[in-house]
Amino acid sequence: MIKVGIVGASGYTGGELLRFLINHPEIEIVAATSRKFDGEPIYKVHPHLRNSEIKFENLNPDEIGADVVFTATPHGASMKIVPELIENNMRVVDLSGDYRFDNIKTYEKWYGYEHINPIKAVYGLPEINRELIKDADLVANPGCYPTGAILACLPIVAENLAKNIVVDSKSGVSGAGVKPTDATHYPNCSDSVSPYAVTTHRHGPEIQEKLSKFGDSKVSFTPHLVPVIRGIMTTTHSFLLEDVSTEYVQDIYKEFYDGEPFVKILDKGEIPRLSSVRGSNNCYIGGFEIDENNRLVVASAIDNLVKGASGQAVHNMNLMFDLPETLSIDMIGLHP
Amino acid sequence: MIKVGIVGASGYTGGELLRFLINHPEIEIVAATSRKFDGEPIYKVHPHLRNSEIKFENLNPDEIGADVVFTATPHGASMKIVPELIENNMRVVDLSGDYRFDNIKTYEKWYGYEHINPIKAVYGLPEINRELIKDADLVANPGCYPTGAILACLPIVAENLAKNIVVDSKSGVSGAGVKPTDATHYPNCSDSVSPYAVTTHRHGPEIQEKLSKFGDSKVSFTPHLVPVIRGIMTTTHSFLLEDVSTEYVQDIYKEFYDGEPFVKILDKGEIPRLSSVRGSNNCYIGGFEIDENNRLVVASAIDNLVKGASGQAVHNMNLMFDLPETLSIDMIGLHP
Amino acid sequence: MIKVGIVGASGYTGGELLRFLINHPEIEIVAATSRKFDGEPIYKVHPHLRNSEIKFENLNPDEIGADVVFTATPHGASMKIVPELIENNMRVVDLSGDYRFDNIKTYEKWYGYEHINPIKAVYGLPEINRELIKDADLVANPGCYPTGAILACLPIVAENLAKNIVVDSKSGVSGAGVKPTDATHYPNCSDSVSPYAVTTHRHGPEIQEKLSKFGDSKVSFTPHLVPVIRGIMTTTHSFLLEDVSTEYVQDIYKEFYDGEPFVKILDKGEIPRLSSVRGSNNCYIGGFEIDENNRLVVASAIDNLVKGASGQAVHNMNLMFDLPETLSIDMIGLHP
Amino acid sequence: MIKVGIVGASGYTGGELLRFLINHPEIEIVAATSRKFDGEPIYKVHPHLRNSEIKFENLNPDEIGADVVFTATPHGASMKIVPELIENNMRVVDLSGDYRFDNIKTYEKWYGYEHINPIKAVYGLPEINRELIKDADLVANPGCYPTGAILACLPIVAENLAKNIVVDSKSGVSGAGVKPTDATHYPNCSDSVSPYAVTTHRHGPEIQEKLSKFGDSKVSFTPHLVPVIRGIMTTTHSFLLEDVSTEYVQDIYKEFYDGEPFVKILDKGEIPRLSSVRGSNNCYIGGFEIDENNRLVVASAIDNLVKGASGQAVHNMNLMFDLPETLSIDMIGLHP
Repeated sequence: MIKVGIVGASGYTGGELLRFLINHPEIEIVAATSRKFDGEPIYKVHPHLRNSEIKFENLNPDEIGADVVFTATPHGASMKIVPELIENNMRVVDLSGDYRFDNIKTYEKWYGYEHINPIKAVYGLPEINRELIKDADLVANPGCYPTGAILACLPIVAENLAKNIVVDSKSGVSGAGVKPTDATHYPNCSDSVSPYAVTTHRHGPEIQEKLSKFGDSKVSFTPHLVPVIRGIMTTTHSFLLEDVSTEYVQDIYKEFYDGEPFVKILDKGEIPRLSSVRGSNNCYIGGFEIDENNRLVVASAIDNLVKGASGQAVHNMNLMFDLPETLSIDMIGLHP
Repeated sequence: MIKVGIVGASGYTGGELLRFLINHPEIEIVAATSRKFDGEPIYKVHPHLRNSEIKFENLNPDEIGADVVFTATPHGASMKIVPELIENNMRVVDLSGDYRFDNIKTYEKWYGYEHINPIKAVYGLPEINRELIKDADLVANPGCYPTGAILACLPIVAENLAKNIVVDSKSGVSGAGVKPTDATHYPNCSDSVSPYAVTTHRHGPEIQEKLSKFGDSKVSFTPHLVPVIRGIMTTTHSFLLEDVSTEYVQDIYKEFYDGEPFVKILDKGEIPRLSSVRGSNNCYIGGFEIDENNRLVVASAIDNLVKGASGQAVHNMNLMFDLPETLSIDMIGLHP
Repeated sequence: MIKVGIVGASGYTGGELLRFLINHPEIEIVAATSRKFDGEPIYKVHPHLRNSEIKFENLNPDEIGADVVFTATPHGASMKIVPELIENNMRVVDLSGDYRFDNIKTYEKWYGYEHINPIKAVYGLPEINRELIKDADLVANPGCYPTGAILACLPIVAENLAKNIVVDSKSGVSGAGVKPTDATHYPNCSDSVSPYAVTTHRHGPEIQEKLSKFGDSKVSFTPHLVPVIRGIMTTTHSFLLEDVSTEYVQDIYKEFYDGEPFVKILDKGEIPRLSSVRGSNNCYIGGFEIDENNRLVVASAIDNLVKGASGQAVHNMNLMFDLPETLSIDMIGLHP
Repeated sequence: MIKVGIVGASGYTGGELLRFLINHPEIEIVAATSRKFDGEPIYKVHPHLRNSEIKFENLNPDEIGADVVFTATPHGASMKIVPELIENNMRVVDLSGDYRFDNIKTYEKWYGYEHINPIKAVYGLPEINRELIKDADLVANPGCYPTGAILACLPIVAENLAKNIVVDSKSGVSGAGVKPTDATHYPNCSDSVSPYAVTTHRHGPEIQEKLSKFGDSKVSFTPHLVPVIRGIMTTTHSFLLEDVSTEYVQDIYKEFYDGEPFVKILDKGEIPRLSSVRGSNNCYIGGFEIDENNRLVVASAIDNLVKGASGQAVHNMNLMFDLPETLSIDMIGLHP
C-alpha cells in the first residue's frame, strides 16, 4: 500500500482528496493534517465522510511519514513546506499556485510573494505532461480555470488556428474556497453573475505560459463568479486565421484528445453541461461553431474541485505510482 | 451475471438506476426501454453517462428477457406491465406507487385509479422489511417523502412516544420528475419555498399505513417544494407523551438503526445537511431536541433520487439476489 | 419635512430603510451613520442607490438632530444609544431585539445580555398595536420570524381554536444579515435546507409573549435556512379543538384582518408565494386546509427585509407622525 | 388620462407592464387581453398584483379602444395585429421582434417567418432614438440582449475604437418567458451555466444592424443561460485599434451617456451587479479595463424584464406622449 498524506485537509479540496482516497484500493491515508481541527474526526468538517474513522492531526512535515503528500495549502504556504517534504523523501502533488510557473518572475508578479524555495516541478496536466509526471518528485497541480481553459484552447494553439483567443470563464463559488467572504455571501452571489479581476486574474498568465509552449496565440482571460456550487464553464472565442469548417475543427479536437480517459469531445450541435461533469473528473468539450466573423466558439465544462483540483491531483498520483490512471476517480457525474 | 432490465429508463430515476447499475460488478444491463428515445444512446438523454454504449429500446415486457426488472414507470402505468413481467419469470422492483399499499382502497382513493392488477408485493424499505424483500418477486419501492418520513418517525411510533406527529417536508425539484411544469419552471421555483397539497398529498397515507404497523401515532404530513435540485429535508415535530431526555431519544434511534448500513444517527447538537447525502444512498437523522411544550424535533436528510428512489431500488435488488447490500450504491455524498 | 436619522445604515435593513425613505415625500434624511464607511457615498455599499448623494457619517447620538431615528443596530448595541436619543427628544424605531420584550427576564435569558437601559416601548406590529404606536416615543420593531408567525397564528389564538401550534418557518439568507459566515457561505447554503436552533431560537419566546396577550395557545417554533435571498415562508400546523370548516377558518381571518392595508387573505385553494411579496411590505396568508387529524395548515409569506424589518419600520414611522400609513411603502412585489 | 391597452398581458412582460402601469398617474388601463385567462382577475396569474381589480379579456384589436397599445405577443403574432391597431388610430409599442429590423430580409432569415405586414417602425432604444420615438406611431421595443449589448458597445463603435467585439452575455431564465421547457426546468438549469445558439442567436443580427449605423465594428455574440431569475450581464471584449487608457475610455462613456436618466457609468474599479438593477429600469456600465493584448473589457447589467423589455416599453410610451421620461419607472433596484 502506498502511504499518503494530505496537508491542509479541512478545505474543500482536502475534502475531495479524502473522498477519492478513502476508497482508493492501492493507498492508505497516514495523515490528514489541520491545525484548526486537530483531534477532530474528519466528518465534523466533511459531513459526507461519516463512514471514515480518520481524524485531523496537527503535524509537521517531517512527522507525516508518507510516500506521497498532497499539499492543499494556500498560495505562499506551500513553498514553506514542500522542500522539507521532498528532503524527507516524500513525493509531492502541490495544489497551490506556488510551483506552477516556469518563470518565477511571473509567479512573483502575479501572486505578490517572493518565492523563497524554487524547485523544479512538473505541471500536472496529464493531457500534456503524462510522461514527465510519472517520474516527477514534485507535481504542480494546475489551477481550476487553467485546466478548463487550456484543454479548450490547446488544439487551437497547437494548430495555429487563431492569433487571439478570448477566454470568458464562469466558475462556481466553491472555487473561492471554504472561507466565507463578501463575494461568497449567499445574498450577494445568488441570483447574480459577477465578472471580477476582468483583466488581472493570476490564472491568466498561467494559461498563457502553458499554451505558449504549443504556439503563439495570445489569450485574453476574464473570469466570472456564477451562482453554482461546482463547475467551470469556459467559453472560448477564437478569431480564426483561415476559413475552416466546424467538422475540421472538431476532428482536430478528436484526434488531439484521442485515448484521453477524461476528455470527452461532444457530437456536433452538443454543448457541454456542468451537470455532466459534476463530481466527476471529466472534461467535456463542445460547440465548435464558427460565425460570419470567422470567430470559433469552443466551450469546456469541468468540476472545479475535481478535474480542476483534487481529482486531477489523484490522477497525477496514479501516474506517479504506475497505477491505472482512472483508479478511484472514475465516478460518474451527478446529473441532474 | 444477473440480467437486469429497466423499463422507463429516460427519466431521472432511470438515469440514476443506470448510474448505479453500469458499474455494478454482478449484473448486466440487458434492456433500457424508452418509447420516445428508441435507438438513441442513453447519453443523449443522460449526458453524464457518456462512457456507456447502451441504447434505449422500445420493448414489450415479454421481450425484455431479464432476471429482474426495474419499472420506473408512472403511477397507473406500472400495474399494466408488472403482472406480465412476473408471469414471464422476471422479478420486479416497481418504483411507482401502484403496489405500495396493502389497502387497495387507500391507493384508489388517493391516486384516482382503479387498480386493475393487484398483486401481493413487499414494501421495499430494507430497514423494516429486509427478510421479506429477499424472497419477494415484487418489491414496491417506497415513495421519496415516505422514505425520509418513515425513517425519521419509526422509533417514535414503535416506542409509542407521541400521539401526534407533524411531518413538514422540503423536497428538491427533481422529485417532480423530468417533465417541465409551471411548478418546476425556474423563475417560479427559484428563490421561493412552496407548500403544496398541504393536507392532501398521497404520500401522507403511505407514511401512515406503514407506520401504523408499528404503533398508533397519527401523522400529519405537509410537503414543500424548495429551490434545491436533489434532497429531502424532513422536519418532524412530535408531542411527547412523557418527559424524556434528548439522550434517551437519541439512544432509542441508535439502537433502532444499529447495523443499518445506510442510516446514520448524528451526534448531539448535529443537524443533517442535504449535501451530506447528495448523490448517496444514506439517510442522516439528527436533532432530537425537546422544547418546553414537550415537542420533539427530529430531522432526516436523504437524496430523493437515491435513497428516495433508485439507490433504494438497487439496495432491494441486492437483497433479492443475495448480493452484498451496499454493492455499487456505497458512493460518498457530494459536499459541497 | 420630518427629519429622519438612520443609525447603522450600512447593513441590509439600513439599505432597505434608505430605499423607502429616499423617495418618501414627507421626510428628509438628515443622517445615515456608519463607523466603518464614514465619508463614503451610500452607493458604495448599496449599489442600487446610485442616484442618491447621501454619505455615511460617523455620528454620536446627540449629533443626529432628527425628529425620528431608526436604530438598525445589533442586539445589545441599541440599548446603549436609544435612551440618549430619546433624552435628546428624538422618537425612535428600534430594529433590534432589545426593546421587544415586556418581560426583561425573557430578553436577558434568550439574548444573553443584561439589559442596562430598560425603557417602556410599544411593540411595533401595526396590526395589533396601531393606536399605541401613534403615540409612542419608542417603537420596538418586531423580529422577522415573529412578524410572519404572529400574523399567521393570531386569529387561531384569539379565537382559541387550538391548544398547540407548530410554527415551521423557512427564511431567506438575507435574514442573517450582511456579514458572511459559514452558514451563509454560498457552497454551504445553496442547494440545501437547514433546520437550526430547532427548539431554541430567540424568536420563539417573542412569538409566544405577543400571542399570549390574545389567548392560551402554546407555540412550538423551528426555523430553517433556505436558499432564497429574501422571504420567509411560515407554515403553521394547529391541532384544532373543535370540528370546523376551512371556510369558517378563512372567514375568521378575513374578518380579523379586514381593512389592513398590508395583509392579504388568499382565496380558497391558494397558497402564498414568496415572489408575491418580494420587495413589498405585504403579508399574504393562505392555506386554511384541515386534515383528518383535525390539523389546520395556515401559511404566510413576507419579505423578511420589508414587512419583516424596514418596511414595517417605515410603517411605524408613518403612524407615529400621522402620515398616510402606506406612504412610500406601497410598492408592488417583484414576481417573478 | 391616456388610455392604454396591453395585448398578451398574461406573460412575464405583460405582468411587468401592469406593474409599471397600475400606478402610472397619467394613464388608465382600458384592456389587458388574454385568450387563455379571459374573465380571470389578473392576480390569478400575477400574484403580486393582488391590489388590482383588472381582469383579463379576450378582445380583438378593434375592440381595445386605447390611445396606445403594448403588444406583448410572440414573434410572428405581432405582425398580424399591429397594422389593424394602427389603422384604428392606436399608437403601438411592440415588444416582439417583428418590427425591429430595418432590413426585412434579415428578419425573415433569422426568425424564419415571411413578414406579411411590414410597416415603418422606430427602434425603441431611447438612448439612440429619443426624438424619433416621440413622433412614432409604431415603436419596436428592443430585444433584451440587444439592449444590454448595444448600450455597452455603442461608444466603442461610434468612436471606432475596435474592429472586433466579442459579446458574451449571461441571461436570467425569465428571459425565456413564462412557458416551461426543458431548458427552464429547475433541475436542468439550476447549478448550471449553458451556452446556447453560440453563433446563431437572432439577437446577434439585431445588435449588429443597430450598431452598424454608428460604425464598422463587427460583433460576435454568444448568449448563456444562467441560474438567475432576472438580469443580463453582458461582458464585452474589444480588441482596441489604438493604445488608450482606461480613463480615456471611461470618459468617452461618461460623455456619451451624459444626461441619460437610466444609464449609470460606474467609477473606476467598479463592476456592475445584477442586484443593482433588479426590478429597475437602469443599465449600469463598468469595467473599462484593458489587458496586455489591448483587449478592453466593458460589462453592462440590466434587468431583462425591465430595461430589457417592459420598463423600456413604458419609457417609450412616456416619450410618445410627452410625459416625464421616468414617470412610473423610476423605482430603485432590489439589492440584495
